[in-house]
Amino acid sequence: MNEDLMEKIMSEVMKKMEDSNNDNNTNKKIESSSLNNEGYRMTEFVGKTKYGKTIGLVIANLDKSIHDLMGIDKKYRSIGIVGARTGAGPQIFAADEAVKATNCEICKIELPRDTEGGAGHGSLIIYGAEDVSDARRAVEVTLKEVERTFGDVYANEAGHIELQYSARASYALNKAFGAPIGKAFGISVGAPAAIGVLMADEAVKAANVEVIGYASPSDGTSFTNEVIVFLSGDSGAVKQAVIGAKEAGLPLLEALGGEAKSVTVPYI
Amino acid sequence: MNEDLMEKIMSEVMKKMEDSNNDNNTNKKIESSSLNNEGYRMTEFVGKTKYGKTIGLVIANLDKSIHDLMGIDKKYRSIGIVGARTGAGPQIFAADEAVKATNCEICKIELPRDTEGGAGHGSLIIYGAEDVSDARRAVEVTLKEVERTFGDVYANEAGHIELQYSARASYALNKAFGAPIGKAFGISVGAPAAIGVLMADEAVKAANVEVIGYASPSDGTSFTNEVIVFLSGDSGAVKQAVIGAKEAGLPLLEALGGEAKSVTVPYI
Amino acid sequence: MNEDLMEKIMSEVMKKMEDSNNDNNTNKKIESSSLNNEGYRMTEFVGKTKYGKTIGLVIANLDKSIHDLMGIDKKYRSIGIVGARTGAGPQIFAADEAVKATNCEICKIELPRDTEGGAGHGSLIIYGAEDVSDARRAVEVTLKEVERTFGDVYANEAGHIELQYSARASYALNKAFGAPIGKAFGISVGAPAAIGVLMADEAVKAANVEVIGYASPSDGTSFTNEVIVFLSGDSGAVKQAVIGAKEAGLPLLEALGGEAKSVTVPYI
Repeated sequence: MNEDLMEKIMSEVMKKMEDSNNDNNTNKKIESSSLNNEGYRMTEFVGKTKYGKTIGLVIANLDKSIHDLMGIDKKYRSIGIVGARTGAGPQIFAADEAVKATNCEICKIELPRDTEGGAGHGSLIIYGAEDVSDARRAVEVTLKEVERTFGDVYANEAGHIELQYSARASYALNKAFGAPIGKAFGISVGAPAAIGVLMADEAVKAANVEVIGYASPSDGTSFTNEVIVFLSGDSGAVKQAVIGAKEAGLPLLEALGGEAKSVTVPYI
Repeated sequence: MNEDLMEKIMSEVMKKMEDSNNDNNTNKKIESSSLNNEGYRMTEFVGKTKYGKTIGLVIANLDKSIHDLMGIDKKYRSIGIVGARTGAGPQIFAADEAVKATNCEICKIELPRDTEGGAGHGSLIIYGAEDVSDARRAVEVTLKEVERTFGDVYANEAGHIELQYSARASYALNKAFGAPIGKAFGISVGAPAAIGVLMADEAVKAANVEVIGYASPSDGTSFTNEVIVFLSGDSGAVKQAVIGAKEAGLPLLEALGGEAKSVTVPYI
Repeated sequence: MNEDLMEKIMSEVMKKMEDSNNDNNTNKKIESSSLNNEGYRMTEFVGKTKYGKTIGLVIANLDKSIHDLMGIDKKYRSIGIVGARTGAGPQIFAADEAVKATNCEICKIELPRDTEGGAGHGSLIIYGAEDVSDARRAVEVTLKEVERTFGDVYANEAGHIELQYSARASYALNKAFGAPIGKAFGISVGAPAAIGVLMADEAVKAANVEVIGYASPSDGTSFTNEVIVFLSGDSGAVKQAVIGAKEAGLPLLEALGGEAKSVTVPYI
C-alpha cells in the first residue's frame, strides 16, 4: 500500500473525526429534528430539539407533594417543563415568547452549571397552568423558538459568545434577569469570562442603554466561566448595544479558538 | 482504491471511534480492574475501581493540623478516603454498607460538580476510625459495593438517570441525605433536570412513600443538571416508587440521547 | 484487502486519534504560540497562550458604569484582564509576578468551575491601573509567566495534581489565598479530591510549615473535585512541603489514570 493511499485514507478519516467532534460540540446540532416524536408515545413527552439537547415535557396532574417540594402554587394543576444540557439565554428568551403566547405562568427558572464540559449553563424552566393544553402549548412554543434564539450564539472549542434581544420583555425575562416588563431588553454573554468583560464595556459604549445587571463567575452565575450584562432601554439602543458587544467579542473568541459560527441563523 | 474499500475502512474506523468514545463516557468502565494494585506499593493506596474513576485511600496517622482544617474529631487517628470523578449516589449507598460492616464513622461527604463533563456530581467520602485496619476495611467494602450500586445508573450522551434503594438506611445515607436510620430508603435522579422532575412525580404516584427531600440545580445540588428526590417508607413501597421513576425516566433519556444501558448490572 | 493492511491502517488511525485526543486534553498545548498576535489588530487584545486557553486583554478607558457594576475604584481608568478556561493556580502565581513587576493593583480574582470538563477551576483576573501601558505590561508578564507556572501541573485523563511555590508572596497571592505578603508561600492541589487529602497530609508531614487554609469540594472551591492546602513559612520548608505533596500525589494520580506528565517544565 503506497503512501498516497495511506495519506488519502488518513485525510478522509481525519475529516470524519472532525465532523464527529463537531457533532459533539457544545451548542451544535444533534441528529434528531426539532419536535420529532418518532414513535415516542408517553403522554408526558412534548418534544425535543437538537439545539442544546433541549427536551420538553408536561405533567397533567402534578402530585400535591411535588407542588410542596418545588414550592409551586397548587392552583397550577398542570406544569410544563423545558430542560437543556446546553444554554440558558436561548431557552429563557424562547420561554418569554411562550408566556406571551399562552395562558401560563413562569414558576421556576434554574440554571445548572453545564454545557457538557463547556463554559456556561444549562437550564430548567417550569411553567404552571390550570389546563394541561396551556402547559403543552407553552412547551411547544419554547421548543420552536429555541432555534431562533440560538441564532446569536457563536461557539468554538475555546468558548462561546451569546447575544439576545427582545423588543418587549415579558415575565420569563423578568423572573430570570429582572428585566423591566414591556421594555426592550438584551443580554451580552462572553466565555471565557475575560471576553465577556470586554463585551460588557463595548455594549455600554455602543449605545445609550441602562445596565441593570452584571454576572460573573463568582457572583450571579452558577460558577460558569462567563461575564454577562443585562441591558434595558430604548429598542434601537439595546439592539445597537448587543451588536457592539458582538463585534468586540467575536474576533477575540476566534483569536483564541478559531472560527466561531452561529449555531443556527443570527436574528439580531 | 474503490469506493467499497473506502466504505469498509471508514466503517471500521467509525466503529473503533465509537468504542473509544464509549470508553471516555461518564459512568463507563475504565480498563483497570476493581481493587487491582498492579505493583503499586504505597501503603496509603487501598484500591480503585473502573466505575466512576473511584479511588480508595487510607491514612494511618492523620496529621493533627489536618484534623483541625477538616473539622474531624482527633479521636479518629486513622481516616479512610473514597473519591470519584463520576458518581455520588453509587459511592454513598456503597459507603452505607461499609459503615454497617465496619467500625467506622462517616466524617464527611462532599459532592463536587463533576462527572467529567457530564450532568452530575463526583464525590469525596471520609471515614474516621481509631484503628487503621477499620478504615482500610471500610474503603475496601465501598470499592467492592460500587460495582453493585452503579447497576441502576443508566447513561447516554444526553445525560443519565439513577435509582438507588436500601432496605435499611444507615449512617452514610443519614449524613448525606437525611435518611431516617433503619428504614428503607431510595433515591431517583434524572439528568438533564427536566427528566428528573417527571421521575419525581412518577415516584410518588407509583407507591405510598414519604418524600423527605427534593434537590434541583439551584437548591440542594452543587449546580448539577439534576433533579433528585429522596424517598423513605415501607421497603416494598420505596422499591416500587424508584421502579416507577425508572420506567418514566428511561424512555425520556433514550428519546433525547439514544440507548442508555446500565453501567453494570441492575440490582433493584 | 488483507487483514495486515487493515491492521496497519487501524493502528495509524488509532495513533492519530490519540494525538488528536491529547490535543483536546485539559492543560495541554494548543496550536497557537504564546503571545502570537497573528495579524490580530484589536487594540484591546494583548495576547494569548496555549496553556490553559489563557487570553490577555486591556481596556484603556473602562466605562464608568462598568466600574460600578464590577465594584472597581474609578481611579483605575485602565484595566488589564487575564482569563482562562483551565487553571487558577498557574494564572494567580503568574499574576503575583506581574504585580511585583508593574504599577498595577489586583482588583478581582474570580474562579469559575471549569477546566473544560476536567476537575478544577478556570480563572478571571482583573488588574487596575491609572495608565494603560501599566495594565498592558501586567497582562504581558502574566501571559509569559504562565508557561513556567504550569510546570508543576501534572494531568492525565483521571485528573490532575498541581504544586506552586513562591519565595515571596505579593498582592495576588494575598488577595486570592490570604498569603502573608513577603513570606514564602505554596499550594498543593489534588484532583480527584481524595488524592488532594493525602497530599495535604503529606505536605504538613514533610516540613515544618504553617497551613493557612484548606479548600475542598463543598468549602472554599467553586465545587471543584479538588482538595487544596495553602502553606506559608520558611522558604526551604514550603518548598519541601510541596515536594512531599507531589511525591505522594503523583503515583496515586498515575495509578488511577496512567502517566501524568508536566504540562510544561517543572520549576519547583
